[in-house]
Amino acid sequence: MKRTLIKNIKELAGIVEDRAIKYLSGKDMSVLHRIENAYLIIEDDKIKEFGSMLQLPTERFDVEIDAQGKTVLPAWCDSHTHLVFPTTRQIEYIDKIKGLSYEEIAQRGGGILNSAKAMATIPEQKLYEEALVRLDEMSKWGTGAVEIKSGYGLSLASELKMLRVIKRLKETSALTIKSTFLGAHALPTEFQNNRADYIRLITDEMLPAIHKENLADYIDVFCDKGFFTVDETDRILEAGAKYGLTPKIHANELDYSGGVQVGVRHRARSVDHLEFVGSDEIEALLNSGTMPTVLPGAAFFLNMRYSPVREMITAGLPVALATDFNPGSSPSGNMQWIISMGSILYKMLPQEAINAVTINSAYAMGIEQEQGSITVGKKANLIITKTIPNIEYIPYYYGENKVDIMMINGKIVNP
Amino acid sequence: MKRTLIKNIKELAGIVEDRAIKYLSGKDMSVLHRIENAYLIIEDDKIKEFGSMLQLPTERFDVEIDAQGKTVLPAWCDSHTHLVFPTTRQIEYIDKIKGLSYEEIAQRGGGILNSAKAMATIPEQKLYEEALVRLDEMSKWGTGAVEIKSGYGLSLASELKMLRVIKRLKETSALTIKSTFLGAHALPTEFQNNRADYIRLITDEMLPAIHKENLADYIDVFCDKGFFTVDETDRILEAGAKYGLTPKIHANELDYSGGVQVGVRHRARSVDHLEFVGSDEIEALLNSGTMPTVLPGAAFFLNMRYSPVREMITAGLPVALATDFNPGSSPSGNMQWIISMGSILYKMLPQEAINAVTINSAYAMGIEQEQGSITVGKKANLIITKTIPNIEYIPYYYGENKVDIMMINGKIVNP
Repeated sequence: MKRTLIKNIKELAGIVEDRAIKYLSGKDMSVLHRIENAYLIIEDDKIKEFGSMLQLPTERFDVEIDAQGKTVLPAWCDSHTHLVFPTTRQIEYIDKIKGLSYEEIAQRGGGILNSAKAMATIPEQKLYEEALVRLDEMSKWGTGAVEIKSGYGLSLASELKMLRVIKRLKETSALTIKSTFLGAHALPTEFQNNRADYIRLITDEMLPAIHKENLADYIDVFCDKGFFTVDETDRILEAGAKYGLTPKIHANELDYSGGVQVGVRHRARSVDHLEFVGSDEIEALLNSGTMPTVLPGAAFFLNMRYSPVREMITAGLPVALATDFNPGSSPSGNMQWIISMGSILYKMLPQEAINAVTINSAYAMGIEQEQGSITVGKKANLIITKTIPNIEYIPYYYGENKVDIMMINGKIVNP
Repeated sequence: MKRTLIKNIKELAGIVEDRAIKYLSGKDMSVLHRIENAYLIIEDDKIKEFGSMLQLPTERFDVEIDAQGKTVLPAWCDSHTHLVFPTTRQIEYIDKIKGLSYEEIAQRGGGILNSAKAMATIPEQKLYEEALVRLDEMSKWGTGAVEIKSGYGLSLASELKMLRVIKRLKETSALTIKSTFLGAHALPTEFQNNRADYIRLITDEMLPAIHKENLADYIDVFCDKGFFTVDETDRILEAGAKYGLTPKIHANELDYSGGVQVGVRHRARSVDHLEFVGSDEIEALLNSGTMPTVLPGAAFFLNMRYSPVREMITAGLPVALATDFNPGSSPSGNMQWIISMGSILYKMLPQEAINAVTINSAYAMGIEQEQGSITVGKKANLIITKTIPNIEYIPYYYGENKVDIMMINGKIVNP
């Protein structure tokens, strides 16, 4: 058994004493519980105990880290990414700047359908190696857990390829990874005139094959205008439930699509995007157990309207934030930027933004029992910051990496 | 004499063959001249020659750098900063999120006037050391030259203190630094009822003292609604001219203030901010020799309207971008973020955004003869990027540092 002590911590923040607390809602989001001048003890990969330096036990430790002047926080959980992708799409981005239409961009090789084309031919090994590089980048900015979706496959073979890569990342990366099957990301060209056939391909062929190899933890549908309808979402989520898959869905990015309501009805773990949320959606989400998840990177990159985060929190809802890391609409996995954008663009207090990327996003990916807070018994996935004056500085001083030391499973992984 | 070779450069970009070219305007901004598979030779601190690897001279070099797969660019020039400041202002930022009024924020210790209070007491050495840390951070993101303003002093003693710190930074930092006197940043409380007296303090006391110690290269006025009028700006710039100071002014951030026109009339090197620019302002700027400079970081941080960059470029104007690094409205000196925001939020092509932070921002700070492009005889202030697929990737992949090696004066300073 290896025992590690982190001592002289200026602020130990993100403490949730009670492991039964699953997430923070409404006003509770504005409080980030902290101990000043603290210590924290790690046993192997778990948080063993913590407290004030005045009560520091006089035992010996295998490793001692002096965190003088530094803040210790739970590592970020990024609950919504598409980071297994075949190629970046900067050319499409330039086309958008030039004002090309969606159709022109698709013709020139942009969009999800064209990622799917590239996915069909890219070797699985290359896909895996490039995703591993991205995970490494993300962890340098403080991320300790990541949800990854399929959905650039859109055929049985390619969806399986993506999900197998995610499975391999789970096995090899030190980060905690959850896998989501997103066959219903877009309708492939060859099914434009027979949508029902593609739904059947998902429900009758993809799902059984995925189940057989145990490739997915969650099921996702892009339930929005121009993508999948509420009825289609219903059918897909029902089929997923037969295989034990909980939903985490794309909802209300492009319209009041009914996505939030259908998600809640199917007891989705989260509904994500939420640019179009009014009182009906807020009503549906209250006390639902479904985490409203906002993706500032996509709204920033596409100049979209912002999700009404303040209204949701005022109504008593919890909110999670995630990167939506993907090559088309959010080409970054940097969670510190998400915290800054959540705060600067959505007017979240720093405490709210940090709770949104820790305990709440841990819940959004179903790992709130193991991660997302400083809690005895949880995994020691921790950020030791550089010397910073206070928590508020994290979103405020937005251009620099505030992480000094990154710990995953109780081990220093960076620098 | 030390000779350095950078070889196997995938793309040498930002080439301006003709040293007489001072900046790029209109359509010319969309072209970033490049040589693929290139070499570049540095003699001491200057670019000696460059060309295709096929013509690589067979001499020997003291240092050889292999830039296989990498892009080489001129270092960024940040032509508008307030990076000598006494303290960060994250508390004021939180007050803004909470919706406090400008007056309430000022009462609680926010705003320029409160920076001025802190400036009065901070030791010059501390001010200097903290600024040096910021310069170091900026250079890691690719910046090789920085303009720094006074303006948190607002008294003779404090303005001199700031300007002396900037002078010391000039002498000790490897970066190229230009100094701007901004006594007219805000009206100090004690002059609220006698504005003319403060103008006289600037013109009759501060300017002679600054001249005596040779502390400033430029003079700046915040010519905008609620700050200084066109008439006051006229008076201050006239007085500055007597001491040989060229204007670089804050204009049209809060209104159609007439700031652009008064700047052009006084042959300002640049007019900066420009959120309120219409056809009159564009007309005034055309063929004026005054560089329109846009500050995306401040617009992002304060959720301001965006300057009409596309209209300006379409009208044939040049545009420069800079950080506006300051603790109140733009707490970041990260120029890669400015490039990304310029491109993502203002719809600038990557080439336009890169020209805006190199040759055009070099002009905006009066160093276009020595920096801002890959030109024989200019300073070897260079960025060697990580392996990136192309130039477009720089603004697109927005969360990561694309700089691998940073050279200042022909020497590697980072990593």
